[in-house]
Amino acid sequence: MARQKLDRESANEALADIGGWSLSEDCGSISRRFEFGDFNAAFGFMSRVAMAAEKLDHHPEWKNVYKTVDVVLTTHDAGGLTELDFKLAKKMNRFAG
Amino acid sequence: MARQKLDRESANEALADIGGWSLSEDCGSISRRFEFGDFNAAFGFMSRVAMAAEKLDHHPEWKNVYKTVDVVLTTHDAGGLTELDFKLAKKMNRFAG
Repeated sequence: MARQKLDRESANEALADIGGWSLSEDCGSISRRFEFGDFNAAFGFMSRVAMAAEKLDHHPEWKNVYKTVDVVLTTHDAGGLTELDFKLAKKMNRFAG
Repeated sequence: MARQKLDRESANEALADIGGWSLSEDCGSISRRFEFGDFNAAFGFMSRVAMAAEKLDHHPEWKNVYKTVDVVLTTHDAGGLTELDFKLAKKMNRFAG
């Protein structure tokens, strides 16, 4: 079930449940920019997320420039968003404090 | 000296000294794609680089998608490439094995 593609309605419901994330126009991914105090804090966040991602066997696409981390979540196998993306997004919000 | 901007000739000389990196057309940055066996290996590499970057006080712009890490190095303060970029590039090559 976790890797089943969500339709637009379910994606919007799941989105309402997490703060700070945006849904792509085609409803295929969610994205968020995280900003921290410095590189140390940004990479510390990434390290916590990396371990959670390995545990979930679901990985982010992300770009880091100094204290900024831009994240895109999607489930390639499903060709869109699944519960896994929202599960990882929630963890990222929690880790970012 | 390490943060002094390199001219095109010096940048090309420094580039010849490291494998796998490309110079941008405007000579303002160098880039390289690193590929690993899986996310664990890719993020392990990033962790080593992160610590080296903190030590140098010089940080990469990088994007990670599963086992791939795309890196751009430039020195914003100098408005272009400096010795620091090539120092970090060399370390990355070493860490990538």
